[in-house]
Amino acid sequence: MASLTVPATVPSPAEDCEQLRKAFEGWGTNEALIISILAHRNASQRRLIRDTYARIYGQMLLKSLNDEISGDFERAVILWTLDPAERDAMLANEALRNWKPANRTLIEIACARTSTQLFAVRQAYHALFKRSLEEDVAAHTTATFRKLLVPLVSSYRYEGPEVNMKLAKSEAKILHDKISHKAYDHEDLIRILTTRSKPQLIATLNQFNNEFGSAFNKNLKSDPKDEFLASLRAAVRCFCCPERYFAKVARVAIEGLGTDENALTRVITTRAEVDLQLIKEAYMKRTSVPLDRAVAGDTSGDYERMLIALLGA
Amino acid sequence: MASLTVPATVPSPAEDCEQLRKAFEGWGTNEALIISILAHRNASQRRLIRDTYARIYGQMLLKSLNDEISGDFERAVILWTLDPAERDAMLANEALRNWKPANRTLIEIACARTSTQLFAVRQAYHALFKRSLEEDVAAHTTATFRKLLVPLVSSYRYEGPEVNMKLAKSEAKILHDKISHKAYDHEDLIRILTTRSKPQLIATLNQFNNEFGSAFNKNLKSDPKDEFLASLRAAVRCFCCPERYFAKVARVAIEGLGTDENALTRVITTRAEVDLQLIKEAYMKRTSVPLDRAVAGDTSGDYERMLIALLGA
Repeated sequence: MASLTVPATVPSPAEDCEQLRKAFEGWGTNEALIISILAHRNASQRRLIRDTYARIYGQMLLKSLNDEISGDFERAVILWTLDPAERDAMLANEALRNWKPANRTLIEIACARTSTQLFAVRQAYHALFKRSLEEDVAAHTTATFRKLLVPLVSSYRYEGPEVNMKLAKSEAKILHDKISHKAYDHEDLIRILTTRSKPQLIATLNQFNNEFGSAFNKNLKSDPKDEFLASLRAAVRCFCCPERYFAKVARVAIEGLGTDENALTRVITTRAEVDLQLIKEAYMKRTSVPLDRAVAGDTSGDYERMLIALLGA
Repeated sequence: MASLTVPATVPSPAEDCEQLRKAFEGWGTNEALIISILAHRNASQRRLIRDTYARIYGQMLLKSLNDEISGDFERAVILWTLDPAERDAMLANEALRNWKPANRTLIEIACARTSTQLFAVRQAYHALFKRSLEEDVAAHTTATFRKLLVPLVSSYRYEGPEVNMKLAKSEAKILHDKISHKAYDHEDLIRILTTRSKPQLIATLNQFNNEFGSAFNKNLKSDPKDEFLASLRAAVRCFCCPERYFAKVARVAIEGLGTDENALTRVITTRAEVDLQLIKEAYMKRTSVPLDRAVAGDTSGDYERMLIALLGA
């Protein structure tokens, strides 16, 4: 369930472009007008606006936005305006240029998208960066992380509903055996997590819970500071309960001193057209505070208004 | 350069189907008629014939072929009649069901196809087997081979012509270093071979040759019986000189006692629409015997006639 709201009658792309052009004209910029248009158009409408803008004004809309606005507001508007696959390719590249084990962007892109969407990200990555996604992941990540991330971003999982219960049982045992020996990066554990279809994997993890009396992820908490274990847990949560996973990313971004604007923008722009409504419900359930109120309390100005608009307020 | 010959005026799919139906009718089968049609139609024409046949006769053409013909001839006709991506998916699955280190089918599919073709194979594999290709590769291969084959079949290499010479130099050094220490399955060696674009890889291998005075593949011959080293050499040859690689597969299939029909059929059906003309030239250069004469000398009957037709005689 998306949170994006699109008006019942949408102006033509040419009309939207004219309004955007007006928002950029003269002294200062009309940020409210930009938000009122772009934050209320779906991916194919935004694509049409970008194409029309380039045709009419001989300039890229993203370039104009880049000239007119700045800071967290600019980042949110530009990430949102991109096609989903392009946006993910940009986010992945950004994560790789300064890769840190604590960054979960690659895990999210590899595990919380459909197989077809992930492949579209790989195509967009070729077009934007003249390299392959897996090539950059392999070159910029290290050791254990590389063993996990390269097959994750290269996966093209089967998407049918079929589940093989015999396999689920045998692989639950393998997972338990590897975890019992703290062999968290064992090739069989990585193989199961990176190649099996999501329904098959969920059956295996349920089997794990039934057979061994505690959830797979609970067994990956031996060292709370271990970022590799945290990455495995994030992957599992992206498969099994993406809305609760993203609600937590938003919560961590908002809580504590300061705000992690990058993470907050990432959650809102990548999920507004997917399941942000469910994320809001999961957030409310966990914190007893509506996500839009929490966002409003922690951000300000045009950036705040952009996020609130995408949250469907 | 393909070897396939298609007549200047091709009958309509309905006419072709009618003739095929005639070939199947009554006592016995008219194999020559089957060959005269199917062995002289390109992939999109064969696809149309299959669709039309199913519509007119309410039966799958492949099923009718399966009922009417047998042995090596059947295998050649059916493999040829399939779409290229479906054919590769079938060949990969066949190789995996009884996987042996000496089988090079997966290497060929991963390394001698374009990125888009390899992705189409992965899509066809989903549709045919309800699992992903990489999932079966990971589950059926072992140890060192798995380390190489999973990333190879999962790759989606960048296909632009750009080459980074600085990178080629540094990675040639890495390859040389790993090989000097006999670390043939080192993760950096695997990473370079499985993720870099083909032009980049060729630049790196040329650099290797220039800098260290002998070809990369020459350095992978320390143990002629080591199938992993042979697989690495096959991958490199599929990247750099597919026509010479396939000419050798055909030569090995033909030479010696008995014929390896599976390998011969694989080379001819997978390359007839790609570069079989070049493979014939490479074969001639190496053996001084035309490939079609060698095939005719080593096979017989309808199987021989089918292969000779695909060879463009």
